[in-house]
Amino acid sequence: MNNSFFEIAQILKENKYFILFSHISADADSFGSCAALWHSLTLADKEAVILLEDNLAENLKFLGKGVKVFQYDSKEGEAFIKEAEKNGGYVSICVDCASVDRFPKREELFWNGKYTVCLDHHLTSKHICDYNYIEPSASATGEILYKLIKSTKMPLDKNVGEAIFAAITTDTGNFQYSNTNKESHLIAAELYDLGVDFNKVSIEIYERSSLAALKLQAMVLSALEIFNNGRCCISFVSQDMLKETGANMDDSEGLVSKLRSIDGVEVSILLREHENNKIKGSLRSKSDADVAKIAQSFGGGGHKKAAGFTLNTSIEEALKRVSEEVIKSI
Amino acid sequence: MNNSFFEIAQILKENKYFILFSHISADADSFGSCAALWHSLTLADKEAVILLEDNLAENLKFLGKGVKVFQYDSKEGEAFIKEAEKNGGYVSICVDCASVDRFPKREELFWNGKYTVCLDHHLTSKHICDYNYIEPSASATGEILYKLIKSTKMPLDKNVGEAIFAAITTDTGNFQYSNTNKESHLIAAELYDLGVDFNKVSIEIYERSSLAALKLQAMVLSALEIFNNGRCCISFVSQDMLKETGANMDDSEGLVSKLRSIDGVEVSILLREHENNKIKGSLRSKSDADVAKIAQSFGGGGHKKAAGFTLNTSIEEALKRVSEEVIKSI
Repeated sequence: MNNSFFEIAQILKENKYFILFSHISADADSFGSCAALWHSLTLADKEAVILLEDNLAENLKFLGKGVKVFQYDSKEGEAFIKEAEKNGGYVSICVDCASVDRFPKREELFWNGKYTVCLDHHLTSKHICDYNYIEPSASATGEILYKLIKSTKMPLDKNVGEAIFAAITTDTGNFQYSNTNKESHLIAAELYDLGVDFNKVSIEIYERSSLAALKLQAMVLSALEIFNNGRCCISFVSQDMLKETGANMDDSEGLVSKLRSIDGVEVSILLREHENNKIKGSLRSKSDADVAKIAQSFGGGGHKKAAGFTLNTSIEEALKRVSEEVIKSI
Repeated sequence: MNNSFFEIAQILKENKYFILFSHISADADSFGSCAALWHSLTLADKEAVILLEDNLAENLKFLGKGVKVFQYDSKEGEAFIKEAEKNGGYVSICVDCASVDRFPKREELFWNGKYTVCLDHHLTSKHICDYNYIEPSASATGEILYKLIKSTKMPLDKNVGEAIFAAITTDTGNFQYSNTNKESHLIAAELYDLGVDFNKVSIEIYERSSLAALKLQAMVLSALEIFNNGRCCISFVSQDMLKETGANMDDSEGLVSKLRSIDGVEVSILLREHENNKIKGSLRSKSDADVAKIAQSFGGGGHKKAAGFTLNTSIEEALKRVSEEVIKSI
């Protein structure tokens, strides 16, 4: 059962030190929601940090400007933990994630908090903390953060607003995905009153592609094949393609959705060679096809419209096997 | 001076026949706004048509479903005009355009209306009609249509809502461009109450790329060159590329904005070979650079962040001349 915003706000008000946990490979919803909460807590004279265990994506660094963001095992991170413990301990808050495998290296640190709090919108999330607010109907965790902050009269400024907008606009596919709702737009409208520079946020998030990433995209599109009477398409990213373009695997994020955008295509597949004979496959469907089932047949899983799996084989073999399975399934 | 919505609504209420004019190469704002008005007028028992003089883009055809959309010189178009004239004439309404060079073949038809009305949001539009409502602060003409329909209590249903959403989401770059405003979001939020299926609209508009268009995009990205210390980039579309991919020139729409999305790039340029020795250039800037000035130096024009020009030369020569001019200018 969820706690009320009032109960969660009480924990925030009654304590002084907070450690915020975004998930590994943080996206704008996880990190933006952390940043929003950090700004609000800091405006309320609290001591807060966001502690990470991996590097923040280049296009999210602007959200960390002026924010105390450290690696969990850095000098600054450890100094904060020490100070918090000297002063009666800290509250751990996991944001946009509710499972320790989403912050594995920080697990001990998380449970060492005198209270644990979870703020999340994932359907599969469990109530693992002392205080939980998990609302799958929210378009983004940023939406939950905004409602928490506003309804409990926590401080709200332009920085909070920019981080909330970043969270919502990315998780809703810029207000296009089916998780977008009336609230997403009403919140965005309210953020205008905080003086948020939406276009700046958008340029920071979306207009920082690397040349290497675009060259990789060109290669993936060139390698694209359509099959099953135009209903399916498949392409791949090989280690050779990464070498040739200078891109890294993260640069292929989102490409599988782009492949789905072809007229008539119902299922798109992108195979990514993470290492020799280790292929990660991503599947997307446009409307009716259930790609979770296809992923399951390879030992993977996911949602109806977005799923994934891992195969220990060559790219050539994977292309063949996956295409055959997809034709069988849809 | 603008007329009031009340005055415009009076003209709509007092007349029976209406011809709606979207601009040539109609986009979702122009055609969507026409479709919204068509649905509202039809619900109010009026007789209305949208008359075109060129083909509607594939991804906008869903907006014309159930709507009377004809070529201006078709049998159906001419029959409507005849009937209207037999019954006291028609009202001409130009939507998202206020200049006859935006509907050149329909000019006579337009002025033959017993009243002319203009609904538009372009800064450069002049008050050429009997009744005008031109509001450059509106994010889209769709925003104006919604306000007109709502404030004057004209009929509003799901079809009107879907067309308005299509208009606003495309003209605001999915709520990311700097013309997006609080109203854009408040209207989108209100459209939820009409039962609009936003995700369906979004899939219709954006997920109908052709394979040829993606292959063309791959070639444009492969040909991309960065110069001026990473601040500028340039690429091109040749007739050979169109032949090889099977794409048409319209498929390269929007690519120049994609090129601008590279980190560090301030100015992006796309040259398009429309025919031998006829190159159309498009320029985009990310923040400070004034690309209208660069376009003017080639006899073209436009806005600070988006401009264009035509050169009668080869692609190779154009690439060289334009790159040199851009380096000089920024």
